[in-house]
Amino acid sequence: MTMTENLEPISSNKSFGGWHKRYRHRSRALDCEMEFAIYLPPQAETERVPLLWWLSGLTCTDENFMQKAGAHRVAAELGIAIVCPDTSPRGTDLPGEHESYDFGSGAGFYVNATQEPWKKHYRMYDYVAEELPSVVRQHFPLNGREAISGHSMGGHGALILALRRPGHYRSVSAFSPIVNPTQCPWGRKAFRGYLGDDPGAWTQYDACELVAKGASSQPLFIDQGEADQFLEEQLKPERLEAVCEEHDHPLTLRRQPGYDHSYFFIATFIEDHLRYHAEHLHKQ
Amino acid sequence: MTMTENLEPISSNKSFGGWHKRYRHRSRALDCEMEFAIYLPPQAETERVPLLWWLSGLTCTDENFMQKAGAHRVAAELGIAIVCPDTSPRGTDLPGEHESYDFGSGAGFYVNATQEPWKKHYRMYDYVAEELPSVVRQHFPLNGREAISGHSMGGHGALILALRRPGHYRSVSAFSPIVNPTQCPWGRKAFRGYLGDDPGAWTQYDACELVAKGASSQPLFIDQGEADQFLEEQLKPERLEAVCEEHDHPLTLRRQPGYDHSYFFIATFIEDHLRYHAEHLHKQ
Repeated sequence: MTMTENLEPISSNKSFGGWHKRYRHRSRALDCEMEFAIYLPPQAETERVPLLWWLSGLTCTDENFMQKAGAHRVAAELGIAIVCPDTSPRGTDLPGEHESYDFGSGAGFYVNATQEPWKKHYRMYDYVAEELPSVVRQHFPLNGREAISGHSMGGHGALILALRRPGHYRSVSAFSPIVNPTQCPWGRKAFRGYLGDDPGAWTQYDACELVAKGASSQPLFIDQGEADQFLEEQLKPERLEAVCEEHDHPLTLRRQPGYDHSYFFIATFIEDHLRYHAEHLHKQ
Repeated sequence: MTMTENLEPISSNKSFGGWHKRYRHRSRALDCEMEFAIYLPPQAETERVPLLWWLSGLTCTDENFMQKAGAHRVAAELGIAIVCPDTSPRGTDLPGEHESYDFGSGAGFYVNATQEPWKKHYRMYDYVAEELPSVVRQHFPLNGREAISGHSMGGHGALILALRRPGHYRSVSAFSPIVNPTQCPWGRKAFRGYLGDDPGAWTQYDACELVAKGASSQPLFIDQGEADQFLEEQLKPERLEAVCEEHDHPLTLRRQPGYDHSYFFIATFIEDHLRYHAEHLHKQ
């Protein structure tokens, strides 16, 4: 682990005075080649900067957020780097891996799989919590302060990572997160496939369950569009609201009238999230 | 022409308090079904608003700019609608139409073709100058004031439309435009195919030639990335600079160090362009 990881540059674009860069590297946790993107604000040329992790949703790669969220402008102003991992292992060809949009490739769900044939590669929890952070810390001028956010499946990922790792992330936020995956179709399909039939193994990856267990007192900041097509069946923010109220867990849940599940919704409110994270990341 | 055009809604997303909407319609000019997108700022719910035309580059559709430029935020603030047409006829299957990225589908070059087999459909000049404006004026609360901008092939389109139609657009700007298509590989290939072998028929679609002819005194505002991979072979901004100087044509050409041809470049400077257009669009 003292060896420096090799990063193969894919592309580099100047953006708002900083740089959007994409890299390929060999992941040990996932046993495959992975790609990721980083936005380095202009401040990173002269100082170490804090880092926001962005976890994307179903079907996404590292590219969706960087291209569509309009986040670079505010990150450049605030001096925050952003890293976008991919959403699943790639380049493997497991049986059925590419057959549905909500399981397998593009749908890693930020868990460590325990079931065949997934357990050899589908370890996105470890990849996002441990391996990729170690890689980016070796290669970029980061100051060690981290926050985390994400959308939909990635909002779920951000919430569970923050709740399971108290004190690690200075702040957490999410857009339209899957807050209770053990109780919705997307989550149940993914958890059954990656973690097996015993729901007892699922609760460690469920934000509502983690809040109920008192895993952390990390405040949660969430935006949810009221016209989101997945609101009632998959996202169920009222469940998180209820469990946070019951357990006195700090939650800011904003319901945004008229907004759907798209990146237009994220772009509209990403500035609020970046300023929220900056407040925590820059605090002495 | 008094008949109201039918627009078939494709999608609608709330964005920065306004609406991003996509439509399908039958184009008479192009003799095919076409799609386009409009961003309506929040002000359009209570008043008629001015309109910015955005013309995209090679390989694009109406979607690239709307998703990647980060323009909605500033358009919402300034009360400007934006329409993005597609970049070529669609749904036709002419011989060789889909074989290269720089000719045929996705590469209409904003000209009226005169050559077989293109002349029946490839009339993007008329579509963007006449037909689509008439369609959007019928359906949306626009106040008749228009500006135009675009990128690369679309920057070429914006410049020639503005130069050929003095007084029509209150302002024109472009990102990395093809300013002298009669003298670069992209332009020569397209013009030969659509307009035939006689370069005399090409000059009406060449910004440098139009400036030299004194077609209009419309000031031109252009941003060009200095790390643009197409700068030397295709874009040649120094040619426009020279012809504008020679003919005393007002030109603001900003060379942006480090920026390439991508949407990250556009996103970085779109705010400047929108504020420039707003100044002209809102002037009494």
